[in-house]
Amino acid sequence: MSEFSFPVRVYYEDTDSGGVVYYANYLRFMERARTEWLRCFGVEQDVLRECEGVIFAVRSVQLEYLKPARFNDLLEVGVAIRERGRASLVFDQRIWRMDDRTELCTGQVKIACLDATTLRPRPIPVGIQTEIERAG
Amino acid sequence: MSEFSFPVRVYYEDTDSGGVVYYANYLRFMERARTEWLRCFGVEQDVLRECEGVIFAVRSVQLEYLKPARFNDLLEVGVAIRERGRASLVFDQRIWRMDDRTELCTGQVKIACLDATTLRPRPIPVGIQTEIERAG
Amino acid sequence: MSEFSFPVRVYYEDTDSGGVVYYANYLRFMERARTEWLRCFGVEQDVLRECEGVIFAVRSVQLEYLKPARFNDLLEVGVAIRERGRASLVFDQRIWRMDDRTELCTGQVKIACLDATTLRPRPIPVGIQTEIERAG
Amino acid sequence: MSEFSFPVRVYYEDTDSGGVVYYANYLRFMERARTEWLRCFGVEQDVLRECEGVIFAVRSVQLEYLKPARFNDLLEVGVAIRERGRASLVFDQRIWRMDDRTELCTGQVKIACLDATTLRPRPIPVGIQTEIERAG
Repeated sequence: MSEFSFPVRVYYEDTDSGGVVYYANYLRFMERARTEWLRCFGVEQDVLRECEGVIFAVRSVQLEYLKPARFNDLLEVGVAIRERGRASLVFDQRIWRMDDRTELCTGQVKIACLDATTLRPRPIPVGIQTEIERAG
Repeated sequence: MSEFSFPVRVYYEDTDSGGVVYYANYLRFMERARTEWLRCFGVEQDVLRECEGVIFAVRSVQLEYLKPARFNDLLEVGVAIRERGRASLVFDQRIWRMDDRTELCTGQVKIACLDATTLRPRPIPVGIQTEIERAG
Repeated sequence: MSEFSFPVRVYYEDTDSGGVVYYANYLRFMERARTEWLRCFGVEQDVLRECEGVIFAVRSVQLEYLKPARFNDLLEVGVAIRERGRASLVFDQRIWRMDDRTELCTGQVKIACLDATTLRPRPIPVGIQTEIERAG
Repeated sequence: MSEFSFPVRVYYEDTDSGGVVYYANYLRFMERARTEWLRCFGVEQDVLRECEGVIFAVRSVQLEYLKPARFNDLLEVGVAIRERGRASLVFDQRIWRMDDRTELCTGQVKIACLDATTLRPRPIPVGIQTEIERAG
């Protein structure tokens, strides 16, 4: 599957007193990229919730921190599908600094499709499945 | 009205690369103190929402930043009522470092009582009004 | 002074369980816009710190919350100078929803120019003063 | 090794519009517990940095999200050492709801001891090594 990527600028809000991006915030950046990746397929998650009654929730994450990002860095956040299930997706994600392409953080994020009311697993809507296959 | 106060420890998550607490986070600390002040009256906001159908929302804030807090500082966050309305409260809040009692941040926060469904103003429940008066 | 504005998308990370953007996060959005406004003048704050030894710090904020922003909203964040001092700036800032131009939050933010080492007030570098006047 | 645990209250700031704790925030809770675990040994990380010139940085994380935590929940965050190296530690961490002891999140976090200036690996100071062994 080809990789989608999305730019993220580092602001003061993202850093900590170690002078680098606070490590939990890479999860935020990765989610922004997944959200924009879905938007590219025409999937707006607020509409998905209202019309199909499903939400996506994170089930597990694995992250390796390679190098720190710093205030004002312009980052790029990559998204690629690693595994496709009926009710879940596993993404390969990585973050690199744009100007020198240094890889800063890599990881895998597993997402489950849930019923918005019961929070039980639900199959990923067919329209989205089709879009993902087409992109693969 | 006497002042209630609540301790807050500064962790890495609260700081920024300037080496100090990120200024928006003082609003978080102030909210923790207001929440614990309500809990002292026996008010649990999740119960309040379910049983009375009301929530509290911030309408306005004014903050002065006097001195920076740093990683690992132990802070104390004060709450005192400044004005009591039928459907709103104005709080005086201040944050100081515990060991030397240096004042770091002072402010006022206006809270509205809202219907949890319509988000329209609703009178503060009588039980809470009574508790607040008794404490005043 | 003409108003500069910068778009901000609302992600899950920005919201709270009230279903709306957590109110402290508007301060983050306003800072992103001030940072991008400076960048438009060619001012990179990491360079400013290293080369001129100065940083900008927030001294006070006043915010009015008018309407809530929600997950997935596309916001626009405005920045305009209200007052210019030798070592400080006061900004008028406002945030509106892009699709219907509803105003959600307005405020004033006072910024001080500080020596990066001593954290004492320092005059705003002449180059920046000139750029701001030109833009005014 | 026996498990150390530390209580964490869930405030609005920790939740998202899904009505649950935003998943990246469990990493914050786990760090608070590791910080308090170190403090139990008499290790203050700001002193450690100044006197020994070392900091601890997160190298990798693996988290499983089992059940969601909600606004106002009182959580307990556990810390136990899984592996001890000369310049790194691997922790088993888990988070449970206090009132019904439901497990919500489990994970492993690998920490490296770094020179505060060069950010290169450095042996964990002997005093801390000894305290950890004694606690084991």
